Amino acid sequence: MRHLLSAGDLSLAEITEICDLAEEMSAVQSRPVKKLPALRGRTVVNLFFEDSTRTRSSFEIAGKWLSADVINVSAKGSSVSKGESLRDTVMTVAAMGVDALVIRHMASGAPWQVTNWIGAHVLNAGDGTHEHPTQALLDAFTMRRHFRGLDGGDLAGRTVAIVGDITHSRVARSNVLLLQTLGAKVVLVAPPTLLPSGVDTWPVSVSTDLDAVLPAADAVMMLRVQRERMSGGYFPTAREYTIGYGLTRDRLATLRPGVPICHPGPMNRGLEISAEAADAASSLVLDQVAAGVAVRMAVLYQLLGGADEMPLARVREVVA
Amino acid sequence: MRHLLSAGDLSLAEITEICDLAEEMSAVQSRPVKKLPALRGRTVVNLFFEDSTRTRSSFEIAGKWLSADVINVSAKGSSVSKGESLRDTVMTVAAMGVDALVIRHMASGAPWQVTNWIGAHVLNAGDGTHEHPTQALLDAFTMRRHFRGLDGGDLAGRTVAIVGDITHSRVARSNVLLLQTLGAKVVLVAPPTLLPSGVDTWPVSVSTDLDAVLPAADAVMMLRVQRERMSGGYFPTAREYTIGYGLTRDRLATLRPGVPICHPGPMNRGLEISAEAADAASSLVLDQVAAGVAVRMAVLYQLLGGADEMPLARVREVVA
Amino acid sequence: MRHLLSAGDLSLAEITEICDLAEEMSAVQSRPVKKLPALRGRTVVNLFFEDSTRTRSSFEIAGKWLSADVINVSAKGSSVSKGESLRDTVMTVAAMGVDALVIRHMASGAPWQVTNWIGAHVLNAGDGTHEHPTQALLDAFTMRRHFRGLDGGDLAGRTVAIVGDITHSRVARSNVLLLQTLGAKVVLVAPPTLLPSGVDTWPVSVSTDLDAVLPAADAVMMLRVQRERMSGGYFPTAREYTIGYGLTRDRLATLRPGVPICHPGPMNRGLEISAEAADAASSLVLDQVAAGVAVRMAVLYQLLGGADEMPLARVREVVA
Repeated sequence: MRHLLSAGDLSLAEITEICDLAEEMSAVQSRPVKKLPALRGRTVVNLFFEDSTRTRSSFEIAGKWLSADVINVSAKGSSVSKGESLRDTVMTVAAMGVDALVIRHMASGAPWQVTNWIGAHVLNAGDGTHEHPTQALLDAFTMRRHFRGLDGGDLAGRTVAIVGDITHSRVARSNVLLLQTLGAKVVLVAPPTLLPSGVDTWPVSVSTDLDAVLPAADAVMMLRVQRERMSGGYFPTAREYTIGYGLTRDRLATLRPGVPICHPGPMNRGLEISAEAADAASSLVLDQVAAGVAVRMAVLYQLLGGADEMPLARVREVVA
Repeated sequence: MRHLLSAGDLSLAEITEICDLAEEMSAVQSRPVKKLPALRGRTVVNLFFEDSTRTRSSFEIAGKWLSADVINVSAKGSSVSKGESLRDTVMTVAAMGVDALVIRHMASGAPWQVTNWIGAHVLNAGDGTHEHPTQALLDAFTMRRHFRGLDGGDLAGRTVAIVGDITHSRVARSNVLLLQTLGAKVVLVAPPTLLPSGVDTWPVSVSTDLDAVLPAADAVMMLRVQRERMSGGYFPTAREYTIGYGLTRDRLATLRPGVPICHPGPMNRGLEISAEAADAASSLVLDQVAAGVAVRMAVLYQLLGGADEMPLARVREVVA
Repeated sequence: MRHLLSAGDLSLAEITEICDLAEEMSAVQSRPVKKLPALRGRTVVNLFFEDSTRTRSSFEIAGKWLSADVINVSAKGSSVSKGESLRDTVMTVAAMGVDALVIRHMASGAPWQVTNWIGAHVLNAGDGTHEHPTQALLDAFTMRRHFRGLDGGDLAGRTVAIVGDITHSRVARSNVLLLQTLGAKVVLVAPPTLLPSGVDTWPVSVSTDLDAVLPAADAVMMLRVQRERMSGGYFPTAREYTIGYGLTRDRLATLRPGVPICHPGPMNRGLEISAEAADAASSLVLDQVAAGVAVRMAVLYQLLGGADEMPLARVREVVA
């Protein structure tokens, strides 16, 4: 694996390896000294063309816990606003001697382009409405851990409902790809105007009736409503959305006991998710956040050859 | 001590211990290698909902000099602008595996709320018009050092005049609490419309006549005029303010020789403080800044168990 | 050398020493562990009053690769917007215990003022339209390496054409000073309204005819057109500018084979430089970026006494 661009590029074996490695890495989180020397002297640049708190911080912490130098470059109000092309910005950053470039960009496909221009490892931290592969990996990691605790099984054969604005969701796209490889059955649930054209060719079931879907779900993933993207068509109002597609308290009661609830955050409480659902014992929202650091550590460790500096056996000794 | 929320939570013994420890830490500032391995592998997040140069940088330097990883999260233009609640933002940051959260927020009381939500140590870096305890600690540290150099005594029994916009000043509130515990006599001086209602119940004297107060003061602390907060009532103009409450050159001459002048910064020169006062030999403004790093190192060292990794005796050896 | 303020302060011997040292430092860029312990425990503050991606990142990487702690302070939306003077901002930052202050400011001359106020080493990272000495050093480093590869010679006697908005270019000013010391012949080429008054007293030739200059040039340095600065006078339109002063494909063909093309970036492709020129085999634009880190490492190493901690001989051993 040279880059991490799409959740669809990962084989079952690769996903399993990343999740297994992330399990090892997650042990670091509970130690007083949360630091492994695996990527000492490597330089990771977070190049973000869109605002982000959680993804940027998560990659920064993951890099620092592996002892890499992490440089944040916010491409708002910088060279970019001076009219520089994406290609020139990226080649400039790479020319400084960067080992990995973590990029978030508003244009779908941007990270693929970037790999044509530079030699550094490229990690897609979200491109437009297209993909967000580390989010799908952390979701898979979180659900896998949940089901293993529950019955020892993996995600294969489980029904995962992904609910909300599918059209604009890179989280949904990456999850569909990853969950397919993992053998899960995905049901997309959305109002008709928030289902992308062509969804009938995706390897999923589609429904516009959340109430019909919930009782059969093994896991529910609620998506963030991005109202700023809802223009130029008929979209539900906030109230209509909640009534039709929110995980309300009443709907929460229709889930089978213990069915986990995921959300990539930031949550609009009271809109797509009720406080009761967000804070339920079965909510994995904060587990997802914690998994984010562990999964990103795993990915950085793999892409940047952490094992050369610190083999996995040594990692295990340290975190034991 | 688990959190640092209010200057009023600290006993005399605790304040003394922090100041003594800060004295040790301050020795680091004059060494070429300004670095102690006491908090190696600990993660400190600066979560700032308001702009700040000095407090954020001071905490960042303090953390880095103790070898912690420091992550800056500016909560402007991030998840917060996407409508996420404070609780969700804070719980998300904490879930990443953070040891200490340094928080500045525009709402008075926010840091207390935060301690109900997360397990990490919480440091109040300024909440609304309420408190700013590390500022009070650095002020106490600076004045203590001054008086010890002068006559060997501490702050007990000294008269400290705090002058300016008391109503909107978290610096004033935290100083009143800390100075009371230290046994100092505090005189608040302000125009009537900048004195908070209920100030008569505070353990201080109150005056609206700066000229009457200055000749008896052992120390003078000028507060920043925050003109953006002066609306919806009668407030003095800038010129009226300076005439009535500025530490002008003429007023400077009425202080007893060597009486120290403090200001938390940033200063409005020519408004609440004249250039002559700001740059006087008796001005401790820059000493306060230097003390800020030492005091924050001391607090982080204490809260995060720096002594486990590097006992104080070892710190002394290294900085000796 | 105590500060780096102006390219004009550097003797031939000093420039040579910095470039030689930067050659050693540049070897670090191709190693997996890009880290030298030379400035361990030193604190470098990037104090930027103007937006910058490349210069700020370059200094940050340079500092971190030398193991310094690097603190970024963006002076927009901070104390400065609260009305604090430059002097107070700078003295505050310095009082925290900073070893070096890298400053970018919109006022020409600001870094000189700063040296009167603080004891830390000051590095000018761009002051108004005045100077940008590390840019000139990295340009010299890049061209020197090119000519050495070509014929073993240095910059002495070479003709360097600097083309574009000379009036507003700190890059041009610093390059003129440095190239003069290095014995190069500088030809400034610009439309009359973008030539500064008094340019006839500079140690350069001046031309308004790019086509006449190019065939004799040994190196061409294109400057960024800063359209935001072109007001209050007659300035060419973008189209007129390209026709008269852009390094178009046709003009590229008039250069002697292999003549190197430089640009400080960010480039306005299609305006002052064509894609063919920017991406030509003879383009050194990305070499300049890489050189930026190496040169800044060299300057920080020299100013901050890196040799005390890690003598050059030891650097050589590590990067060998």
